[in-house]
Amino acid sequence: MQALLRRNISELEGYTPGEQPRDEDFIKLNTNENPYPPSPRVLSALRKAANPTLRFYPDPVARKVRALAAKVYDITPENIMAGNGSDELLSILMRCYIGQGDEVAYPVPTYTLYDTLIAIQDGQKMLFPYPDNFTIPPGLYSQSSKITILCNPNAPSGTLEPLSEISRLAGSVAGILVVDEAYVDFAESKATAISLVNRFPNLIVLRSFSKSFSLAGLRIGLAFASEEIIQTMGKVKDSYNLCRLSLTAAEAALEDIDWMQRNVLRIQKTRRVLTRGLERLGFEVQPSEANFVMARMGKSHLQWLQQGLKRKGILVRFFDLPELQNMIRITVGKPQEIQAMLQATEELLAERDREQSESADFGVRPAAPGL
Amino acid sequence: MQALLRRNISELEGYTPGEQPRDEDFIKLNTNENPYPPSPRVLSALRKAANPTLRFYPDPVARKVRALAAKVYDITPENIMAGNGSDELLSILMRCYIGQGDEVAYPVPTYTLYDTLIAIQDGQKMLFPYPDNFTIPPGLYSQSSKITILCNPNAPSGTLEPLSEISRLAGSVAGILVVDEAYVDFAESKATAISLVNRFPNLIVLRSFSKSFSLAGLRIGLAFASEEIIQTMGKVKDSYNLCRLSLTAAEAALEDIDWMQRNVLRIQKTRRVLTRGLERLGFEVQPSEANFVMARMGKSHLQWLQQGLKRKGILVRFFDLPELQNMIRITVGKPQEIQAMLQATEELLAERDREQSESADFGVRPAAPGL
Repeated sequence: MQALLRRNISELEGYTPGEQPRDEDFIKLNTNENPYPPSPRVLSALRKAANPTLRFYPDPVARKVRALAAKVYDITPENIMAGNGSDELLSILMRCYIGQGDEVAYPVPTYTLYDTLIAIQDGQKMLFPYPDNFTIPPGLYSQSSKITILCNPNAPSGTLEPLSEISRLAGSVAGILVVDEAYVDFAESKATAISLVNRFPNLIVLRSFSKSFSLAGLRIGLAFASEEIIQTMGKVKDSYNLCRLSLTAAEAALEDIDWMQRNVLRIQKTRRVLTRGLERLGFEVQPSEANFVMARMGKSHLQWLQQGLKRKGILVRFFDLPELQNMIRITVGKPQEIQAMLQATEELLAERDREQSESADFGVRPAAPGL
Repeated sequence: MQALLRRNISELEGYTPGEQPRDEDFIKLNTNENPYPPSPRVLSALRKAANPTLRFYPDPVARKVRALAAKVYDITPENIMAGNGSDELLSILMRCYIGQGDEVAYPVPTYTLYDTLIAIQDGQKMLFPYPDNFTIPPGLYSQSSKITILCNPNAPSGTLEPLSEISRLAGSVAGILVVDEAYVDFAESKATAISLVNRFPNLIVLRSFSKSFSLAGLRIGLAFASEEIIQTMGKVKDSYNLCRLSLTAAEAALEDIDWMQRNVLRIQKTRRVLTRGLERLGFEVQPSEANFVMARMGKSHLQWLQQGLKRKGILVRFFDLPELQNMIRITVGKPQEIQAMLQATEELLAERDREQSESADFGVRPAAPGL
């Protein structure tokens, strides 16, 4: 059947998500899940909704979720679409706008799923490498791809562009600007671009309930855009893309924004501890506005560290790509998890230093020629 | 932004699902939902799973669901993919195999979502009209489209092709054969083609938990195919396509097949009552092996009947397409729902007959010319 495949599919690598071990004894700091549980109101709404009405199809257009989100984000329901995670919303967008050879521009390194989705559509990536401080590469403003994507805060760097730059970008690109705000609730100050949707008909803002709302398990995302764009996306999305229970959870979560915000405050506090701790151990840490922190140590390849931590029962994320091999990404967990991670890292670094000095004393020098 | 759309998207109608009224007082016989609730084991597993682990991502490859399904359907887990409803699995298949101008063949009338998914991919439909008895059109065996689809039992006819014809079709088409078995559990005898997957590397069988398992609200589908095809589909599917609770429900449902089968027996019994009742009222009814029945009355346009029933609080499905306007499709509900539907139909037919004879006596003849 290989011969029947579309060419770009047979060459496709596919996106590899982070490890999801079934062993719950790991300290899991690898996939940016929230260390705190979802709102008790969400859990009780779900228990109530686990009833015989599950035999009915869900609302295909998520009316109640959109009405509640419209109030929370001060926009109309017609500007909102609910998706099976923001991943599905990204995929819908690509299927609407990107065909063979169509260009999609974005700064890198960033969320690597963009690459996969563009390849599936036979589109063309236009990559703009971030400068060392992760500000928007100047070339991004002046290109004319069909879609420009900005992950803001960016993953894996955690860096945030201010709203003024988003406006500038939306006003200067020729095509659509997608701002992927999966992590924006973790920023120190209000940073969402949703309020710009009414000003820029080419702007699409994506949100996720996986991180700040502690609902990665329920796959809920929202897209905010002009009515025209939302209607177009509706032609492509699966009719019943969100199950009844995900809709129920989204509704209850939107009715308890306080719970989410309290957890965000705790994570911001732990993020400061993590950042200082990593810096003390000699890492360069980009100031993060997300629920993770990126740590580099010069040009050192850091897979050994990720593997060492895994042996000690701690999962962090290492991306095996040329431009990302000198970093690890650590999700901001609970204070005690972060303490454990910092201590394990300190031990591993000390071990490595000891081994390196031993091998310098006794070890691996090449044998003298001719012997 | 309209100018940026892919051409086939700007021309796309989009699939229109059946009405999902929020008013639960309707007798809902329009979208083939099961009138009986899901297994109590499913509901209790869901209540238990509504806990803080929802903050974690789901298993991206649904290991437990696939292991259980492998046992139930006597195949290996490597031959199975779980999807967000069989709709998502269809969409993944199209994205893997169908590009600009690629052909997809299927008999019509059938599930109209196929049209939409092909259009999104810029593919080409090859339609083979069903003969009046809804057997496979002979031309379907000998064509060489990339994908052939057979909905079996077919919707909206409810007719079933025996396994011998599926084998013949799989062996004779040049490309992939997709057998969409959303309704197969309702057949009078075992009719699934899953056992043929090991014999035909070009065969894909799709199943749904929406109908027989009473779980339309949770969006669960399964694809059965060769390892090669399943692996290819894995490159295209969203990483976390099924939420944790849908996975939980699928697992519990597979552990209580008896519950599903008991409901199927009840529905089969009511289907016989519905069929006889409709025939008594003068409808032609195709023998149905699904949880719905298609009723025609010569060439009469039947929208008036669907609208009349709706006024009486009963929803049935009418498809406003030229080749389907002379039929309505009625989901097999509970016995008392079907009695109500038959009685309301009888009243509406009598009313219409009365009106027609009145208008013939007094009514609508054109005024005599010149007066």
